[in-house]
Amino acid sequence: MTTDRDYRIDADAPIGVFDSGVGGLTVLREIIQQIPNERLIYFGDTARVPYGSKSKETVTRYSRQIVRFLESFGVKTIVVACNTASACALEELERESRVPIIDVIRPGARSACQVTHNGRIGIIATETTIGSQVYNRYITRLNPKATIVEKACPLFVPLVEEGLWEDPVTDEIARRYLTELIDRDIDTLILGCTHYPLIRATVGRVMGEKVRLVNPAYETAKTLKEMLKERDLLRGRPHVLGEDQYRFYVSDEAEKFKRFANSIIKYGILSAKIVNIEEY
Amino acid sequence: MTTDRDYRIDADAPIGVFDSGVGGLTVLREIIQQIPNERLIYFGDTARVPYGSKSKETVTRYSRQIVRFLESFGVKTIVVACNTASACALEELERESRVPIIDVIRPGARSACQVTHNGRIGIIATETTIGSQVYNRYITRLNPKATIVEKACPLFVPLVEEGLWEDPVTDEIARRYLTELIDRDIDTLILGCTHYPLIRATVGRVMGEKVRLVNPAYETAKTLKEMLKERDLLRGRPHVLGEDQYRFYVSDEAEKFKRFANSIIKYGILSAKIVNIEEY
Repeated sequence: MTTDRDYRIDADAPIGVFDSGVGGLTVLREIIQQIPNERLIYFGDTARVPYGSKSKETVTRYSRQIVRFLESFGVKTIVVACNTASACALEELERESRVPIIDVIRPGARSACQVTHNGRIGIIATETTIGSQVYNRYITRLNPKATIVEKACPLFVPLVEEGLWEDPVTDEIARRYLTELIDRDIDTLILGCTHYPLIRATVGRVMGEKVRLVNPAYETAKTLKEMLKERDLLRGRPHVLGEDQYRFYVSDEAEKFKRFANSIIKYGILSAKIVNIEEY
Repeated sequence: MTTDRDYRIDADAPIGVFDSGVGGLTVLREIIQQIPNERLIYFGDTARVPYGSKSKETVTRYSRQIVRFLESFGVKTIVVACNTASACALEELERESRVPIIDVIRPGARSACQVTHNGRIGIIATETTIGSQVYNRYITRLNPKATIVEKACPLFVPLVEEGLWEDPVTDEIARRYLTELIDRDIDTLILGCTHYPLIRATVGRVMGEKVRLVNPAYETAKTLKEMLKERDLLRGRPHVLGEDQYRFYVSDEAEKFKRFANSIIKYGILSAKIVNIEEY
């Protein structure tokens, strides 16, 4: 976080939230639930989605553009609601940004370390997140004795986006991906991609009752709330009618985004504007 | 095609081929087979893949950047080896480019019209290609009485990229997508996405023996060869040892591209260079 005399942060300013596409809406949903008074600006990079199969350098370049875009609204903090972007770009964003950055990795790692009994933690995520070894690093820092079992699940995102949240095909793919995690006797599993909470039931069924599922979306919203409270930046007054409470921006296909978003968030998303993010 | 005094086209110049990622390699493979003497430059937009879920405007912007990149090598023609890019950007590219443009849609449409007996033609493709109605337009122009049945199959690309070319899950998804095409009594089916020839066996099994599958990759290479011959631009002399016959460029993840590419093309792909395509 660089200091900047011209950039003033106050409780009334909005919070910026971004993701490679629609997945981050599961984080937005948790934020709305836990701190309903806040104003939120969401950006989904639907022109360049998915991030999960792209390199660290590319994901970092994209994330920096988005942070610059969100800062143009005078946000008081930015939530990187995308595991891949958190895994790739967090250090860079923290160094450059004018506001505090909240990611989805550290809150999930912390929670997993708290709930595990046998110290055996599983992580499922995109290829790039797994490749970054970032969960591994954070967990080992908190609990050097932890055993970590990681598994990339590239088909989960397209299956979720195709709407197959409860479907025999998703069950079958989940069994293939998760069997080796069951065999390794984990008692805690981090849903390390923002799409995965949408197939939480399937993952839970395959893993069995004894394995606790950690949803970083929930933990991230909690961390955000604590940080704002600490810095006296929580917005006290509730929204009033006609106020521009939640605003949505995407880099492509605003209509399709709206349809999907409305299936995740109960609050009716009235409009999503298109931004040429390459210009930021 | 704009005239340009400085841009000279000769038979010895390379051919540019591009796709959103790896799918276009099925077209490259056919080109290598049909006109083996040619020098080829392939670009895969792996940083922004997939195109199939993105808007016409975005896909057109990306395609124009790639054409400018390929023209910087002095190519004699450019093959748009991506159905989505062909569907979205063809007119724009033909207007702007300094060299002839070959697309994958028109050759496939023409072939389908030639092989159908009952005039009932099916098309499977990405959401954006289907949404563009471009196959519909070309086929109707050739055969105004044709009945066209279209179906977007968004999961086929991720299933192919996950390597599930022969798999019960791919069978099941294929049955779901294709049943309505069978019910509509088509006798010809266009594989309207460059990934689909890789699951040709599955699609063929589900559709049954009576339905002819049209592979636009093959038809495109044939059209390319005819065009070059007509203009006296076929390269006569064979390659010599040490010559830079095939060159590969990508916008991200060169190593991953190489691995996938080597599973499609028998010729060993020795290297793929990364390009920052947003600069073009």
